[in-house]
Amino acid sequence: MKRRDFIQKAGVGSLVAGASLASSGVANAAAQFKWKMVTAWPKNFPGLGTNANLLAKMITEMSGGRIKVKVYGAKELVPAFEVFDAVSRGTAEMGHSGAYYWKGKSEATQFFSAVPFGLTAQEMNAWLYYGGGLELWRELYKPFGIIPAATGNSGVQMAGWFNREIKTIADLKGLKMRIPGLGGEVLRRAGGTTVNMPGGELFTSLQSGALDATEWVGPYNDLAFGFHKVAKYYYYPGWHEPGSTMEALINEKAFNALPKDLQQIVLMACKAANMDMISEYTARNNQALDTLINKHKVKVLPLPDEVLKTLKQLSDEVVLELASKDAMSKKIYDSVSQFRSQVTKWGSISEQAFLRARSL
Amino acid sequence: MKRRDFIQKAGVGSLVAGASLASSGVANAAAQFKWKMVTAWPKNFPGLGTNANLLAKMITEMSGGRIKVKVYGAKELVPAFEVFDAVSRGTAEMGHSGAYYWKGKSEATQFFSAVPFGLTAQEMNAWLYYGGGLELWRELYKPFGIIPAATGNSGVQMAGWFNREIKTIADLKGLKMRIPGLGGEVLRRAGGTTVNMPGGELFTSLQSGALDATEWVGPYNDLAFGFHKVAKYYYYPGWHEPGSTMEALINEKAFNALPKDLQQIVLMACKAANMDMISEYTARNNQALDTLINKHKVKVLPLPDEVLKTLKQLSDEVVLELASKDAMSKKIYDSVSQFRSQVTKWGSISEQAFLRARSL
Repeated sequence: MKRRDFIQKAGVGSLVAGASLASSGVANAAAQFKWKMVTAWPKNFPGLGTNANLLAKMITEMSGGRIKVKVYGAKELVPAFEVFDAVSRGTAEMGHSGAYYWKGKSEATQFFSAVPFGLTAQEMNAWLYYGGGLELWRELYKPFGIIPAATGNSGVQMAGWFNREIKTIADLKGLKMRIPGLGGEVLRRAGGTTVNMPGGELFTSLQSGALDATEWVGPYNDLAFGFHKVAKYYYYPGWHEPGSTMEALINEKAFNALPKDLQQIVLMACKAANMDMISEYTARNNQALDTLINKHKVKVLPLPDEVLKTLKQLSDEVVLELASKDAMSKKIYDSVSQFRSQVTKWGSISEQAFLRARSL
Repeated sequence: MKRRDFIQKAGVGSLVAGASLASSGVANAAAQFKWKMVTAWPKNFPGLGTNANLLAKMITEMSGGRIKVKVYGAKELVPAFEVFDAVSRGTAEMGHSGAYYWKGKSEATQFFSAVPFGLTAQEMNAWLYYGGGLELWRELYKPFGIIPAATGNSGVQMAGWFNREIKTIADLKGLKMRIPGLGGEVLRRAGGTTVNMPGGELFTSLQSGALDATEWVGPYNDLAFGFHKVAKYYYYPGWHEPGSTMEALINEKAFNALPKDLQQIVLMACKAANMDMISEYTARNNQALDTLINKHKVKVLPLPDEVLKTLKQLSDEVVLELASKDAMSKKIYDSVSQFRSQVTKWGSISEQAFLRARSL
């Protein structure tokens, strides 16, 4: 962690008009705040950037303009990977990103975005709101002066676009794939080579053969990128990102300077935005999948069970190693693992059993 | 529909303090509103009544007390089944209930709560927010002067508690079961006898043999009722209620009288409450299921495939007949059916394929 991260600027959260900050509600109706929201996404990027826009809009509208939130795309104010630092030191009052970007700060951040063979969107939100997850997340970010909140979820992603067929685990050997985070570590252990590059370079890299495969998100986002023009096979399921969570980062001092009604507005806007994004992805992935299959004749294939089994064993290893890095990682791992084992049992006789029955 | 339903009282939404209603935001900060929320549940009933409490609390807190929402349990102000009328005529500014209670107003209301073999929670919300569902729901309630919003979801329920084993469809013949709505009609066609009675009488009716079976919700709610003491078998999955939606009813005149910031607060509070309830149920059903199995030694059994297949055929018949009742029902049926067929395809390669992989 860099020293500057701890330097807290005074005057965080520009207070435009007067009134006492200590009391709440109507008494502070005249107080106005101008907030900046820095994001890890290109401005207006479908699903991710637009979720940030929605969040800012909801806060601004619900507060009757008492908080005006302005959204900045990656690089507009700070680069994507400096969003956390910018919110920590108060350069921006809010951020919108994914927690796994901050593993340099703490390995445990990865538990709050995507864990291979981890929780689905519905399970993740159950853990966060009713299983102790959010409290742990707040504890983890507390030393950085940041309050985290879940503000969106992509749902189960796709395994990715491949230029060779995957029939056995041996087909992953030597595979050059763009797959970040814990999933990338799993692929390396399976013999693959992981390559990190910005989204904008993926298309040409697949075309030139610099990459054999890439994961991205799912049909809705992938169709827009045109991957079907440069890769033959579209594999599922997204074992590495079963319910990727978007995070809102809130500078703690800026938050504490708000009257109570505006604090509630900021937190509830995140919760409503969280509901919005998974709904958007569930609806739009459908339509995009139809287009990919029927219009673009994409071959949509399942990863074979043998491959998935090996990936699961390797994932368990990788996640267990993560848990051993420090006390906080262990504490979060224990909480989420216990929750996963319980929720798996309930899920098998509820959603899974129902969906099976519906398809009989 | 009763004539009095159309009588709109003047002065809906008590305006306590002055300020112009036409403009929005800070200008109206002094305007205060006292709202009543009538509910179809006993006051503080776990999950349902508490979701109404949460919704009221969020609106009150986010508005800094400018809207004070007071929650009334069933019978406190009006009986459960008069919630819709009370909101329609402005006796209460808000209601909290389930849309299938209002099939006497319009058969099509049933599409917005629970449809046998219909949508899960995540799918339902995707249809409502991004598949045109909410617009149709608003159109349906418009003649009654009510604006509807989704404010919670129970997730996939259990098929219910039974005092006889269900091995073939013949075991449903003559079965006396409490199962309301479309699911009840399906059971009648399968040869069962449906009985309607308030929740409070179910326990003794099972004990006395007046009932052979009852559905209720799921482990979290059922454990509290103690059904495991009077019924032997606990069957899954809840084919009849795969994602039961809770509705918030908002009197249109009262809503229109609010400044824009408070309108947004009311609507977004519903969306955040919607996220909250499915999270609560996903987390708490787990724990309750564990208690039922490990402590109370309940036999948790799947309905056999042959039984589910027949129930599905009968359900398709019943829902198709519902669609033929009137033009609005047809329009909603077409929308939700098309959505279901698309979402089923996406679900099979995303959540279902992932959950299967996780259990390999």
